[in-house]
Amino acid sequence: MTNNKLSTVQSLQWTGHSLKVLDQRQLPELIVYDDYVDAAGVAEAIKSMRVRGAPAIGIAAAYGVVLSVIGHYSGSNEHWKDAVHADIELLAKSRPTAVNLFWALNRMKAVLADVSANPLTEVQACAESIHADDIAANYRMGELGADLLANAKGILTHCNTGALATGGYGTALGVIRSAYARKPINIYAGETRPWLQGQRLTVWELGQDEVPVTLIADSAAAWLMKSGAIDWVIVGADRIALNGDTANKIGTYSLAVLAKQHNVKMMVVAPTSTIDGTIKSGDEIEIEQREQRELLPGCYQDNPYIKAWNPVFDVTPAELISAIITEKGVVLTPANGGVVGLLVV
Amino acid sequence: MTNNKLSTVQSLQWTGHSLKVLDQRQLPELIVYDDYVDAAGVAEAIKSMRVRGAPAIGIAAAYGVVLSVIGHYSGSNEHWKDAVHADIELLAKSRPTAVNLFWALNRMKAVLADVSANPLTEVQACAESIHADDIAANYRMGELGADLLANAKGILTHCNTGALATGGYGTALGVIRSAYARKPINIYAGETRPWLQGQRLTVWELGQDEVPVTLIADSAAAWLMKSGAIDWVIVGADRIALNGDTANKIGTYSLAVLAKQHNVKMMVVAPTSTIDGTIKSGDEIEIEQREQRELLPGCYQDNPYIKAWNPVFDVTPAELISAIITEKGVVLTPANGGVVGLLVV
Repeated sequence: MTNNKLSTVQSLQWTGHSLKVLDQRQLPELIVYDDYVDAAGVAEAIKSMRVRGAPAIGIAAAYGVVLSVIGHYSGSNEHWKDAVHADIELLAKSRPTAVNLFWALNRMKAVLADVSANPLTEVQACAESIHADDIAANYRMGELGADLLANAKGILTHCNTGALATGGYGTALGVIRSAYARKPINIYAGETRPWLQGQRLTVWELGQDEVPVTLIADSAAAWLMKSGAIDWVIVGADRIALNGDTANKIGTYSLAVLAKQHNVKMMVVAPTSTIDGTIKSGDEIEIEQREQRELLPGCYQDNPYIKAWNPVFDVTPAELISAIITEKGVVLTPANGGVVGLLVV
Repeated sequence: MTNNKLSTVQSLQWTGHSLKVLDQRQLPELIVYDDYVDAAGVAEAIKSMRVRGAPAIGIAAAYGVVLSVIGHYSGSNEHWKDAVHADIELLAKSRPTAVNLFWALNRMKAVLADVSANPLTEVQACAESIHADDIAANYRMGELGADLLANAKGILTHCNTGALATGGYGTALGVIRSAYARKPINIYAGETRPWLQGQRLTVWELGQDEVPVTLIADSAAAWLMKSGAIDWVIVGADRIALNGDTANKIGTYSLAVLAKQHNVKMMVVAPTSTIDGTIKSGDEIEIEQREQRELLPGCYQDNPYIKAWNPVFDVTPAELISAIITEKGVVLTPANGGVVGLLVV
């Protein structure tokens, strides 16, 4: 099915008694794993962005709960559960907006509510299942997406949606891995300013797996499309509205408009947990503005005339999306009916 | 006419016996002027990119010839001219592709060919005239461009086309200064990866002149346009074909396509010396590829799987350009007949 040697990078490694977290802030210069033995450490690893990417954050938090149980379980009474729930609160506060974080913690809480004897086996099994399910969903999306790429020669991706952002393999980058495993294909990655996730993470993890990739400046994407090198733009998603409008890393909307003008297709790859059943369209998605200092050099900080506008995400209308790939199936031309069908599968 | 307090930055300062060159490589952190007293020094300042921007390079080279005459002139015989011509050769080799460099050196050579007695007054007058003419052309373009912006609320520019890139005031940034002098207007500047001319130079020089400016990531331009904040994209040009197709910094084509899709107008501002009378369309413009290391961190240099695609320029078709502003006049919708008319004014 999938070519596992195409995904060797692991952002999270569970040892049975600790969680090793790859410090993504130091990539690509340094490959450093930090070893965490309690929930407070894992919460700090999430907060400090050593680990990033919504699925990866959820998995890390689940292992954080396992570490809490290891540290606090006592057979003599049920007081240990209070300590574990305090740790769960701590983990929940590590990143306020990552939906997967709360989803994973809720799954762990449900297991805790049911256990009676030594709970370690069950909570560890649940965390490992959250991790394994995420990878399995990525493999499934990889195959479904690759099915659409049989005739593609060139692909452009944005931000990092790979093994580093997930339990492994990746969402958009998982589709690219699966397509590449079937047939060599030219892969391009945008730098993804201001954080350079494309330059620091995507290109690095493909390089680790010996998958050839070409980095471009974000503003070179249009010129690359004009050259005819790109058949598909493939991106992840942070939130998908019921009509298929998709919030994703700033620059995605730009790529979607440019793709349309150059007859390039646009693919969004995300698990169904990314679909927000409470919002009908992208108009309801509030776009977070990040700090100006991510764009401004320090010497500008006190200059009253120089400001920066730094939105984290943008919203791509469903009309500009050719296909949305989820682990439950594919929606072609989501502008015709949205993604509601996926929620009832 | 023009508000001189809106352009206080000088990339070049002629002292009468030396040329002070603002080291643009150190901006915005440090404001350092290097003092050059001979042509070899000026050639090195150009080669090392302390000074950049085609008009600024031409002016610097002209002053380099003046320094050569100061150093080599002797009333006793004509041998000093050989030394000056050797310096002119040296200056000509400092940057091979800047058209203004050769144009300025040719003007200086013509003066040298005519002088008989002490030539210093005449060569200095020619260099100062090249410098003053450039500023005057920028003022003229500024006014012509601003005439089109009476109803504009927001402007986005790309790269650096300001006082730093010219004798003073700037081309596209000159238009923006003139528009701002008439009526406050929201000015946005793209970072302009990979060299960050927008972040390091454009925003800095506007800040120096107390003109408010907002920096954005290049990939945020589309989302900014969608918000309705931008009426015009205003850029410079490196080469304009007879049909109006325009080569400019990578990312310009992207902005032009995005502008069209958002009903934003696109203005190109450049002196007529930028028009290449030998090429009919942009198809004849060869796009230079720069080194991969401008995009790739050092740790990727030896990785055989990671490459970068780094074109310096792109070409914007005339159909996407609303107006081309030159010192000789304005061409609206250049797709209707190109820019040939400007060459016979």
